[in-house]
Amino acid sequence: MAPGQQPLVSQVNIMRATVMHAAFDVRIENVPDASLVLPTDAVIRVIRACICGSDLWPYQSMSPSDQGQRMGHEAIGVVEEIGAEVRTLRRGDVVVMPFAISDGSCVFCHEGLPTACVHVGFFGNRGNDGAQAEAIRIPYADGTLYALDVREDDALMPSLLTLADVMGTGHHAAVVAKVGPGKTVAVVGDGAVGLCGVIAAKRLGAERIILLGRHPDRIALGREFGATEVVSSRGEEAIEQVRGLTGGYGAHAVLECVGHGAAMETAIAITRPGGAVGRVGVPQDAAMPGSQTAFFHNVTVGGGPAPVRAYIRELLPDILEGRIEPGRVFDRTVDLNGVPAGYRDMNDRQSLKVMVRP
Amino acid sequence: MAPGQQPLVSQVNIMRATVMHAAFDVRIENVPDASLVLPTDAVIRVIRACICGSDLWPYQSMSPSDQGQRMGHEAIGVVEEIGAEVRTLRRGDVVVMPFAISDGSCVFCHEGLPTACVHVGFFGNRGNDGAQAEAIRIPYADGTLYALDVREDDALMPSLLTLADVMGTGHHAAVVAKVGPGKTVAVVGDGAVGLCGVIAAKRLGAERIILLGRHPDRIALGREFGATEVVSSRGEEAIEQVRGLTGGYGAHAVLECVGHGAAMETAIAITRPGGAVGRVGVPQDAAMPGSQTAFFHNVTVGGGPAPVRAYIRELLPDILEGRIEPGRVFDRTVDLNGVPAGYRDMNDRQSLKVMVRP
Repeated sequence: MAPGQQPLVSQVNIMRATVMHAAFDVRIENVPDASLVLPTDAVIRVIRACICGSDLWPYQSMSPSDQGQRMGHEAIGVVEEIGAEVRTLRRGDVVVMPFAISDGSCVFCHEGLPTACVHVGFFGNRGNDGAQAEAIRIPYADGTLYALDVREDDALMPSLLTLADVMGTGHHAAVVAKVGPGKTVAVVGDGAVGLCGVIAAKRLGAERIILLGRHPDRIALGREFGATEVVSSRGEEAIEQVRGLTGGYGAHAVLECVGHGAAMETAIAITRPGGAVGRVGVPQDAAMPGSQTAFFHNVTVGGGPAPVRAYIRELLPDILEGRIEPGRVFDRTVDLNGVPAGYRDMNDRQSLKVMVRP
Repeated sequence: MAPGQQPLVSQVNIMRATVMHAAFDVRIENVPDASLVLPTDAVIRVIRACICGSDLWPYQSMSPSDQGQRMGHEAIGVVEEIGAEVRTLRRGDVVVMPFAISDGSCVFCHEGLPTACVHVGFFGNRGNDGAQAEAIRIPYADGTLYALDVREDDALMPSLLTLADVMGTGHHAAVVAKVGPGKTVAVVGDGAVGLCGVIAAKRLGAERIILLGRHPDRIALGREFGATEVVSSRGEEAIEQVRGLTGGYGAHAVLECVGHGAAMETAIAITRPGGAVGRVGVPQDAAMPGSQTAFFHNVTVGGGPAPVRAYIRELLPDILEGRIEPGRVFDRTVDLNGVPAGYRDMNDRQSLKVMVRP
């Protein structure tokens, strides 16, 4: 609220948040302050958020909307308020906010698939608030948030932030693709998720990691993360090259980290008979191409929204002890005012991944 | 060769075999006798063959062909001739002929996926001879055939014959769908493969088996094989019914035993989040419907031509000791002359599966 202005009815505090109104139209707006609604809620002050490759799908295609959509589904925050029924969190806790809301108590949460929670919702999506903001309301705070034992100025903050999505998502692709010691792995896509997929594949013991990507700076980072070979062509040519690198058969495990049909078709075609594709790129098509190739090669295709909340326990020690550095995917940091330019840069491939410090 | 006729050049013996010339045009013809071509070949005299549900795809759609296509890819036979390099077989051995040719020595054969053998071929398909005949030449006989310790008049012959395809294929669907103790399983399709999928699911410890099918006699057999529930509607209605039977979530493991798009879409929609579809119906579409549902539910889709040769060792004791009776899927037996009528009957759903005794 502007200073000196008198509220008409009651005091409604305001904060600043990112709202997308149409393709290529991202604005920073004043919105009502995040506040508790249900007793299982918390409110966190956002100390780090970021822009996701998946935010670029609506950025390129969203139909105009007066109300708009709050954006942002990855954050680290500090707990500011907790509802009466929140049991495991305290004010001042530094927490990871994974991209999905999960109640922590349903059968799917217990099975380690919080992204299938019976109360699942996705931040920055269809009516849920977004994290590219000063603060955000967190439903089912006990189940959704993961408390860290770090201070908010910790130097590892960028890597910790990747636990909210991209590192857990790359790990999911690798787990679903059955990466393991001695395996040859191919990673389709050199975005932040693909690069985290390289980290995950190396971490799980892959013998060879072939990165399919075309951007020199990303490829360079991918090599530092563990990629042993790079294929920069596309389509049939890329397929031939990967087959050539793998004795004609393809990779045991393929991580599909893009989401469009051509990437999926390539992923299936470069999988060794009997191998597996782990897909984490949000599929843009209703039908999956390459179905008959997958069938005749007995290739398994799995994956989906990564249960990143469930993976934090496994991945966190490797970040805290410096064995993996997924935070290196961030190549630009902006404040809230810089968010629209951050979208532009990521969409133009000028930035790999943009961190937001509100 | 007709009696009394004199060969012009050299003696070429003839035999009778099934040849498909066009959709709905299946003939029994005189063809050159099966004979050794390579030193790794064997020739078997066919004692049992059968007509497969997958033979009905070309039966409904084959473009006219003068030369035609030999048909039949499942058999039990007696070894009549062996090439000089055949090491493990002897004349007189009773053998299962799985639907795929495999050399038994390549990396895929060693990994248990003979249907990805570097020398793979499919009987009754693209230039290979078929088993709906008096005899058949077997390439890579050591790798392809599986010798049984039974006599050719064994009463278990029908069940043993299913090891050539449908029992191993139903088992493959169950393995890929990760059927196990305590799981709820759904089987899409009440053909011979679907019914063998029911047997396989029960054998692997499934707690509940929901059979999706519409034919009363097949459903009745499915119940005897172990189906605990039956859903006979289609499309959205079937999906709702299965969800209703499973607390709203779907089955842990779904066996897709049909192959057309609608069946695949149903299979994915009735799979519990985090579950798996094992598909063994030959997909008739280039793209797989239900891709986004599979993604958002983290449903894995796998399967393909079943490595039935590799499964015989596991399944055979259960047949020999009477614990499973997959041979009950045969509801009609014909001689070679009866094969065209057998195709007609199976296509008209008058027969579930037709056995051939040449």
